[in-house]
Amino acid sequence: MVSRRATALAAQAPAIAAAHFRAEAHPYHPQQRPDGYINLGTAENRLVWDLLAPRLSDRRPLTAADTQYGPLHGTAAFREQLASFLTGTWQTAVDPEHLVVVSGATSALDVIASVLCDPGEAIVVPAPYYGAFDIDLAGRSGARLLPVPAGAGTGFRVTASDIDRALTRARQRGITVRAVALASPGNPVGHVHPPQMLRDVVEVAGRHGVDVVVDEIYAHSVFGGQPFVSCLDPMVSPAAGRVHAVWGFAKDFGLPGFKIGVLYSPRPDVCAAARAFAYFAPASTETQALLRDLLADRVWVARFLAESRRRLALSYASAAGLLTAAGIPFVPVGAGFSLWADLGAWLDAPTFAAERALGEGILDRARVNILPGQFFAGPEPGWFRICHATDQAMVAEGITRIVDHLTGGVAGSARRYESVEG
Amino acid sequence: MVSRRATALAAQAPAIAAAHFRAEAHPYHPQQRPDGYINLGTAENRLVWDLLAPRLSDRRPLTAADTQYGPLHGTAAFREQLASFLTGTWQTAVDPEHLVVVSGATSALDVIASVLCDPGEAIVVPAPYYGAFDIDLAGRSGARLLPVPAGAGTGFRVTASDIDRALTRARQRGITVRAVALASPGNPVGHVHPPQMLRDVVEVAGRHGVDVVVDEIYAHSVFGGQPFVSCLDPMVSPAAGRVHAVWGFAKDFGLPGFKIGVLYSPRPDVCAAARAFAYFAPASTETQALLRDLLADRVWVARFLAESRRRLALSYASAAGLLTAAGIPFVPVGAGFSLWADLGAWLDAPTFAAERALGEGILDRARVNILPGQFFAGPEPGWFRICHATDQAMVAEGITRIVDHLTGGVAGSARRYESVEG
Repeated sequence: MVSRRATALAAQAPAIAAAHFRAEAHPYHPQQRPDGYINLGTAENRLVWDLLAPRLSDRRPLTAADTQYGPLHGTAAFREQLASFLTGTWQTAVDPEHLVVVSGATSALDVIASVLCDPGEAIVVPAPYYGAFDIDLAGRSGARLLPVPAGAGTGFRVTASDIDRALTRARQRGITVRAVALASPGNPVGHVHPPQMLRDVVEVAGRHGVDVVVDEIYAHSVFGGQPFVSCLDPMVSPAAGRVHAVWGFAKDFGLPGFKIGVLYSPRPDVCAAARAFAYFAPASTETQALLRDLLADRVWVARFLAESRRRLALSYASAAGLLTAAGIPFVPVGAGFSLWADLGAWLDAPTFAAERALGEGILDRARVNILPGQFFAGPEPGWFRICHATDQAMVAEGITRIVDHLTGGVAGSARRYESVEG
Repeated sequence: MVSRRATALAAQAPAIAAAHFRAEAHPYHPQQRPDGYINLGTAENRLVWDLLAPRLSDRRPLTAADTQYGPLHGTAAFREQLASFLTGTWQTAVDPEHLVVVSGATSALDVIASVLCDPGEAIVVPAPYYGAFDIDLAGRSGARLLPVPAGAGTGFRVTASDIDRALTRARQRGITVRAVALASPGNPVGHVHPPQMLRDVVEVAGRHGVDVVVDEIYAHSVFGGQPFVSCLDPMVSPAAGRVHAVWGFAKDFGLPGFKIGVLYSPRPDVCAAARAFAYFAPASTETQALLRDLLADRVWVARFLAESRRRLALSYASAAGLLTAAGIPFVPVGAGFSLWADLGAWLDAPTFAAERALGEGILDRARVNILPGQFFAGPEPGWFRICHATDQAMVAEGITRIVDHLTGGVAGSARRYESVEG
């Protein structure tokens, strides 16, 4: 027997992880395993390894200090480099003392939710939202998420007035809301939010006396015409008193395994409490040393991020072109690693059960992992997130297989892939 | 305003950390800063850097896979190497599927406490105990610790019958106890527990229907005549059904910054729940890759651990000799990085307030950081933990300063060190 909370948390384990590891265990290879799985479900930036590999190998030897106890919310030297880098990202002066480094953005979200909310208190989230928020923000903290849905009619864009109404309704129902949380740029729909929209959200939250948690993990993965503006930018938050931001190396630097998440808060009481929680999820000093030196190389960083954005624009355009050619609608976006595509026309019924069945069919028979919109609290069934930030030929093969599956090439696919797990 | 639980946790922040960073900010150096602080408060193994440095530099370049998403409870390859290594340590076959890797032993303790206990449930701990257990086991999990004191009369050795009585008393008082937790080898008193004592503890716990959590982080830092026997050894736990062990690289490998903690449980339900908690405290895949390759080099590991034990024996003997010469009593031990010394004769009164004042005097005036027994729930005032696993001349200078301070060289010390923080 385990504790009640452990039972509850273990039951929540996301299906996303199972599908990821199933796909990764027998991956597609054009020659060696042409019938293998294609993983377009996981938002990884696999376009930049050739840039990273030489830079990561050309590292300074570790010093004794790099291996010893450091402050558990990040070494001073690493937080200084981060502050300098994020000052550029956020267009506001970042004090290293207001940064808390933990072992991944998930941990950073868990920390800020635990600091702001006692169990049972709520966080308002525009939906569709990054599905792992259910666990990251609520799984351990005990907070509850209140989704504010936006559908295809508005291009999946929530407005500040939607949030305003949700906050008012929650108060009327006696729910204590502590924060509004959103991803900026968006995920699963990679919108780059206009400064006016962000300003309105910050203003509405302030009016209701709740904080804003903004997950800016895709801040440097913006490739469209609309430039990224941080929620911390004085243009958005003139006072910036209650906006807390999360960032990390998983997406923009293509290093999801390194587990470096950063929480910024302007509030000293929040920082002090976050440092106490960071004690339970500290980052490796080895990895901090590596990334400290990486960030110090400003020229390399600027070139790397520019080249990553260029490649993301290409992979997005290529995948978008294939979907368009196949007659699959999607939402045009300017950031992130994925397309939000409408497979509603191929559902057996306009239900989430049918959406799930279609997703399972694509995984089982076409051997392509893509995530159904229900995972992202998509307000209407039929939408899927298709990641494109990996080898272009593989993405093309994946989309071709999906199209084959949708248009009836199912029996052929089943034959073709039946031996993959043998 | 932050949440109630964040307020409570932040208020618990241990004084140990403040003293550590104060001492580390202005460290002693025989020539460059002879009036600097000497940190004998932090249990770090600083005797082995010359062995580690060449081995850590001579690493394989990272592969793309080393940087990508891996299972959040540790990569399969790392857990396989760990299982092989720990099979030797524990003298029982270790299944990699029963290992959960998280970002440090603190996280591992937090995870197992959270898995076994709901808030308000209790863990029985022999005292004195590793002071950070208060936070590691109870701070986030909400479990409460029930200390079972053992004093100088028994050489600070708790017996299984003491634990038996504590469990019975707790039940009578209506407290739900979920586990007995102990460090083996001990900390702050570095006893190597005899197999019979461990067997009795496991038997008593089993009889009361509670689990055993054993922190074996010093398993390879044993230098005395009594060999280490794990709680998982079939000699101790023939069934091994409810003994959960924690280990890590901080102590035995002298790599406390790397934040690699390992939890082993024989129970599949505990493993599944622990994996769910590991999601919030994953270890860096970079560091996992480095240590995977390190462990694979069995010959190097065996030589390194043997040499570390040899050096620990020497530093223990040297520090013990200095204390003996100064007439300071201590408990003879065979493991760990510290001496448990009796400064009771120098207290102004037989109280913990006087103990605290003496510790502050030693820190402020002699500029030596050692931890008072109260931090370890020492059952009687006057005992201090003095770490010795660092440069021998520095330990000697530290003990000399302590002795000077105790024997009245106080005014001199104050003059000598007054400018250190200027």
